[in-house]
Amino acid sequence: MSAPQTTDSPVLEAARRARTAAADLAPAPRTLRDAALAAIADALTARTDEIVAANAEDVSAARAAGTPESVVDRLTLTPERVAAIASDVRDVIALPDPVGEVLRGSTLPNGLELRQVRVPLGVVGIIYEARPNVTVDAAALCLKSGNAVLLRGSSSAHASNTALVAVLRDAVTEAGLPADVVQLVPGQSRESVTELMRARGLVDVLIPRGGASLIKTVVEQSTVPVIETGTGNCHVYVDERADLETALAILVNSKAQRPSVCNAAETVLVHEGIADAFLPRALDALAQAGVTVHGDKAWQQAGGETVVPATDDDWAAEYLSYDIAAAVVPSLDAAVEHIRTHSSGHTEAIVTTDTAAARRFTALVDSAAVMVNASTRFTDGSQFGFGAEIGISTQKLHARGPMGLPELTSTKYVVTGDGHIRR
Amino acid sequence: MSAPQTTDSPVLEAARRARTAAADLAPAPRTLRDAALAAIADALTARTDEIVAANAEDVSAARAAGTPESVVDRLTLTPERVAAIASDVRDVIALPDPVGEVLRGSTLPNGLELRQVRVPLGVVGIIYEARPNVTVDAAALCLKSGNAVLLRGSSSAHASNTALVAVLRDAVTEAGLPADVVQLVPGQSRESVTELMRARGLVDVLIPRGGASLIKTVVEQSTVPVIETGTGNCHVYVDERADLETALAILVNSKAQRPSVCNAAETVLVHEGIADAFLPRALDALAQAGVTVHGDKAWQQAGGETVVPATDDDWAAEYLSYDIAAAVVPSLDAAVEHIRTHSSGHTEAIVTTDTAAARRFTALVDSAAVMVNASTRFTDGSQFGFGAEIGISTQKLHARGPMGLPELTSTKYVVTGDGHIRR
Repeated sequence: MSAPQTTDSPVLEAARRARTAAADLAPAPRTLRDAALAAIADALTARTDEIVAANAEDVSAARAAGTPESVVDRLTLTPERVAAIASDVRDVIALPDPVGEVLRGSTLPNGLELRQVRVPLGVVGIIYEARPNVTVDAAALCLKSGNAVLLRGSSSAHASNTALVAVLRDAVTEAGLPADVVQLVPGQSRESVTELMRARGLVDVLIPRGGASLIKTVVEQSTVPVIETGTGNCHVYVDERADLETALAILVNSKAQRPSVCNAAETVLVHEGIADAFLPRALDALAQAGVTVHGDKAWQQAGGETVVPATDDDWAAEYLSYDIAAAVVPSLDAAVEHIRTHSSGHTEAIVTTDTAAARRFTALVDSAAVMVNASTRFTDGSQFGFGAEIGISTQKLHARGPMGLPELTSTKYVVTGDGHIRR
Repeated sequence: MSAPQTTDSPVLEAARRARTAAADLAPAPRTLRDAALAAIADALTARTDEIVAANAEDVSAARAAGTPESVVDRLTLTPERVAAIASDVRDVIALPDPVGEVLRGSTLPNGLELRQVRVPLGVVGIIYEARPNVTVDAAALCLKSGNAVLLRGSSSAHASNTALVAVLRDAVTEAGLPADVVQLVPGQSRESVTELMRARGLVDVLIPRGGASLIKTVVEQSTVPVIETGTGNCHVYVDERADLETALAILVNSKAQRPSVCNAAETVLVHEGIADAFLPRALDALAQAGVTVHGDKAWQQAGGETVVPATDDDWAAEYLSYDIAAAVVPSLDAAVEHIRTHSSGHTEAIVTTDTAAARRFTALVDSAAVMVNASTRFTDGSQFGFGAEIGISTQKLHARGPMGLPELTSTKYVVTGDGHIRR
């Protein structure tokens, strides 16, 4: 826990200020943290013009750089969108406070009273891409859970993020908390990210939110502990005993309801015993939804020219588009083996009417979420009833699956005696 | 989760075999895992001679190399010690099964049934130093929690570990589980450790158990997630309103009951308001316990020649010996600040009769365990009633403090519907 020596690096100085601010924030009662959130929501509303004006700079720079319109749309803030962000902050106020929750408690045989209590992690670093709403969402969730946050957004949203963070810091100060509980990481170079990743002892956890290459870089280079989020190569397995209508609905929904997100399906596996009945109907339904099938031999035979022959790369692909890899498998166990080999460990679904198959699939598949007769699209903090989500962890340590407020905490043991010593 | 490509490295091949074995082990019911543990306990007893003979090789090599007798003692296995290790394995059988525990469960508004279930982590790597009993303890805890284990012991215990792992693998096989759930990492070079640290995707977590330099190396170089364990620069703070007898007893017990372990105290901080009364008695009591005090000016004045002047290094030192750093502080908050700056985040104790001081100290100190009027020596899985301990985590992610069986698990969400799709 000893902190690195002082240097002149602006990133490390920001981290050091965050650490100091975190120590003040950690014991702050809920009322104070909620008041800061309310001040943030009010300030976002009051200062909408300023935020939208700053955002307009980013938007015009993006358009000038030839950025695709879909990305420009994600970057854009309108008064309505700012109002929605403020409303989300108010929703966070209403969530249960994770800090101070007693997870375990007992009186030991010698009379010592043992309590395991949730505490904030300390300083949370978030590295994320274009969407400026993440700036406020992440800050609100960190503040609610008693953490200081270091925000490292995309340089394409720098003007927006600078304006938003100015609003957040003013509001937090007004509520009586140190401004440095919310900071934008200084500098827009790659080096500033590298420094953040090496700030072990100052930053308690880094959460990268964005594309696979960003996440891979952070995971490989960071000495600060990382929570890996959001890479989703999700599978739908249609079992031998699946209801065909159910299977079609779940497949199309998993793939096409919103293909750009991590819980969208990228591969469909079909048991050979139901392939003759299912493949023609699935091909029709996927075609109607505008989905291109990248199929193995069996799918190619069933679909002819419409099916793109799948290569090995397709099994690992996270398309995030109207594409799906498709294979026929000889058994449930073969489906599990395929998933084990190629999945990113996010979400897999089985469609079956057979209780034994459902039980075996859920036991053998080792992913953050396993769906039985439900769309992969349900893996989501809001859908799961957590009320908020900082990301979806695809790693096994600390947090797995949608991460809400409790996942932004650690614990400590408080042990109370009356002079107890060990014999 | 995608695994690295096959190579010829023996370490990566062992990791790959562990991964396959882990997939078979994960769904194995408790009865099977417990049967394997019983077979291990029986085999340790039956093959004691073989184990002790192999250990004798390590012991004579260690003596020939001039190893200190205290280290040789930790290395030595006698028939009685092997019997004790077997008995510890039987104790593990009796512990509650963490696998399959439902941590959260609800029915969502749309009727989806959500359950968060404990599952094994998968493949656990343990890097540890001389004690060969760790080989069996770690394997037993991993097996009980459904994990395959890769054991990387010290080369000075290689013959002992090879013999023990042979016994473990035979017993596991006899019980009907794959032998590869327990493996010794091949090779004794530093490179084999490096390869283990880079086996991301094959190994789910690395737990280094040993000295500070081993832990630092693993934390800095590993791309596999690490749980940092066991570095303990623990503090005892004697508050202005402490009962003197209680403070003396806790101080001496924390420091001297067993100075070589991580939960022993390394620094004592005394409020200036009680220093005149406490220091002379503390100096006497510590001297009687054979402890050398490395003190600040105030302690030097109180103790004269007997007190070694403390340098900055003393505040960060983990002596693990009959030495203690000692300072007088102007306030509780100054004590907290000292702890924040120098502590390794393991265990800190306050001795006080003042409820407000106890409350403030436990709120502000950010360590794995905070003791009120109790010895730091109580931070221990067995003392906490966990029945077993794989180490004491001093990090904040995943596990903090003594780690028992639940800390060797992850979770997954199992979500059951009847054709649910997102609208």
